[in-house]
Amino acid sequence: MMEVYLDNSATTKCLPEVASLMTHIMCEDYGNPSSMHRKGVESEKYVRHAKEVIAKCMKVQEKEILFTSGGTESDNIALIGGAYANYRAGRHIITTRIEHPAVLQTCAYLEEQGFVVTYLPVDANGVIRLADLEKAMTRNTILVSIMHTNNEVGAVQPIEQAGELIKRMNPNTLFHVDAVQGFGKFKIYPKRMHIDLLSVSAHKIHGPKGIGFLYINEKAKVRPILFGGGQQRGMRSGTENVPGIAGMAKAVEEIFVDFDAKIQYLYDIKERFVKGVSAIDGIRLNGPVGRDGAPHVVSVSIQGIRSEVMLHALEDKGIYVSAGSACSSNKPSVSATLKAIGVEKQYLDSTLRFSFSLYTTEAEIDYTVKCMGELIPMLRHYTRK
Amino acid sequence: MMEVYLDNSATTKCLPEVASLMTHIMCEDYGNPSSMHRKGVESEKYVRHAKEVIAKCMKVQEKEILFTSGGTESDNIALIGGAYANYRAGRHIITTRIEHPAVLQTCAYLEEQGFVVTYLPVDANGVIRLADLEKAMTRNTILVSIMHTNNEVGAVQPIEQAGELIKRMNPNTLFHVDAVQGFGKFKIYPKRMHIDLLSVSAHKIHGPKGIGFLYINEKAKVRPILFGGGQQRGMRSGTENVPGIAGMAKAVEEIFVDFDAKIQYLYDIKERFVKGVSAIDGIRLNGPVGRDGAPHVVSVSIQGIRSEVMLHALEDKGIYVSAGSACSSNKPSVSATLKAIGVEKQYLDSTLRFSFSLYTTEAEIDYTVKCMGELIPMLRHYTRK
Repeated sequence: MMEVYLDNSATTKCLPEVASLMTHIMCEDYGNPSSMHRKGVESEKYVRHAKEVIAKCMKVQEKEILFTSGGTESDNIALIGGAYANYRAGRHIITTRIEHPAVLQTCAYLEEQGFVVTYLPVDANGVIRLADLEKAMTRNTILVSIMHTNNEVGAVQPIEQAGELIKRMNPNTLFHVDAVQGFGKFKIYPKRMHIDLLSVSAHKIHGPKGIGFLYINEKAKVRPILFGGGQQRGMRSGTENVPGIAGMAKAVEEIFVDFDAKIQYLYDIKERFVKGVSAIDGIRLNGPVGRDGAPHVVSVSIQGIRSEVMLHALEDKGIYVSAGSACSSNKPSVSATLKAIGVEKQYLDSTLRFSFSLYTTEAEIDYTVKCMGELIPMLRHYTRK
Repeated sequence: MMEVYLDNSATTKCLPEVASLMTHIMCEDYGNPSSMHRKGVESEKYVRHAKEVIAKCMKVQEKEILFTSGGTESDNIALIGGAYANYRAGRHIITTRIEHPAVLQTCAYLEEQGFVVTYLPVDANGVIRLADLEKAMTRNTILVSIMHTNNEVGAVQPIEQAGELIKRMNPNTLFHVDAVQGFGKFKIYPKRMHIDLLSVSAHKIHGPKGIGFLYINEKAKVRPILFGGGQQRGMRSGTENVPGIAGMAKAVEEIFVDFDAKIQYLYDIKERFVKGVSAIDGIRLNGPVGRDGAPHVVSVSIQGIRSEVMLHALEDKGIYVSAGSACSSNKPSVSATLKAIGVEKQYLDSTLRFSFSLYTTEAEIDYTVKCMGELIPMLRHYTRK
């Protein structure tokens, strides 16, 4: 049976060259970057090289890259660290209704601590309206956090325009962008886009789990949230995860080789899938299905079939997809994103996310569409009984 | 030239079987444990198995193991999470003067937030006096944090007696133990020792960097410090670092095979080294040099030779050691631990740490002692000029 992994927004297969570099570092160049001897210096070089690679692809400075344990920690440093470093200027934060839980739950925590959070609505495509952002901005707004690419429906926000607007209204307001789904799918240039803080996770781009980074504009005031040995200039204590850092840099390097062609390929795959499933009766696609959306995510509601049933039916065919976002822990709950974009109640519990990678093949898409075409009428038949 | 890595308290070489298991998980069983399909379930199994292995070796429950990004994060969750979950019962914390910066700096942060911290002194061997602990305990003491094994001089604290004392005086006081250096060198049983929170890092025991765990007694109240998708029952959000978790469990499993013989071997190595260097003129050993101390750490002060000079002279012979603790970031500063145990001023800047592993050989020790015997008189000669 064909195995078709279409849950790349949850996590991706690690590149073999990433794993072999990590093995080399773990077993040979295993020094602690804080050690003063050769093995420490060697290890430090991997960290420095990783910073170079990552800084270069976003056209930022190396010292503006902070390594973290992943997207969630990056988001937490940006929000908690950003809020506490600037609370004297105000206690107002703006975000959107369709952020990842790493942003939404952290905002909820900050609300408990006395910060006030405005949640921007989105349109049917999952996109915020700049007029809403403009209205929400006050002189007390210290931080705006807007996701680059949504993890459930692939909605892409007007980041550059939002950045311009924020800085025009209040140059001191920090602009944080959760780019966990957007990085490696779009060219993101923090300087041009007025982004002060940008969260990225390695395991969404064929790198290792347990590692990510936060871009921090050199002028942005952010307080650390972990304290200790003072590594990374005091911003993130703890022995650097050198194999993870080097592995992430390798994955980043790889993705930006022939980048445009790669993204073109992803959009072709997406289009092929969208075309295929659109022909199936009782299907509804949520969010942007074209090039206005992410190249790798398609949200599909299937009338009359519960997501879990469909997920396991596809699993039996070797096809792995997600119900909801799967970024949050096991318990499936009603998706805030789907509600926010106005998906009707009857569909909320009947939605699957298909997410592609560069290694997804046309044959896999065709097989998936074929299986869906066969499974859906059959499952509906049984459900109706 | 022989390569002799004697900086195992800074970090250790990763076991090849750990790296190969991690490669397999990264490239084949790469699912997200939160995904509901087979690849998610598969991945979740590694996490569950790791919990079993770790819980078993400490005789605790699986649900009491929380995976973190390493020792620093474990210490931060224990202290910040423990302090904030219990601040209604009081704002007093007790720790020692010779903790790792991950504890000391986090305490400094908590002091800024209004908590009051008592720092216990230590004797010449780096050991606290239980009478001091008893005196320090108040009805407002919510947390006591005592390191199991010191990273600079190998001092070992009377953890079980301290635990008994704390619980006798106030059963509600949380007892945290930073066991980053002690785990895998000593048998540590939290239940018997009255430990509520225990921090461990994988890369100190031939596991990968970027992963660790915190044992949390099921009855202990601790608040998370990272917010998001609700993984690990809400206590530590973020996609689990499955390869790291599985790699750590593998390293833990390995260390407890023939454990007693392994520790015996380490003490033999230590004894051989201590005997060898003791014969060199103008040497002073700090902290416990016998079986009352850690089996893997020896702190050596060398009269008249600055640590950096000696460190690089040894490096030229292929011997890698540490000046100070090397757990904190690059800048060498005067060690609080050495001061606390009463090392005289003239030695503070002339101290090296030699730390062994199970893979350190007798030949390596003999070579190191021989090099030191040759280098020290020569360096003194030049320094005197």
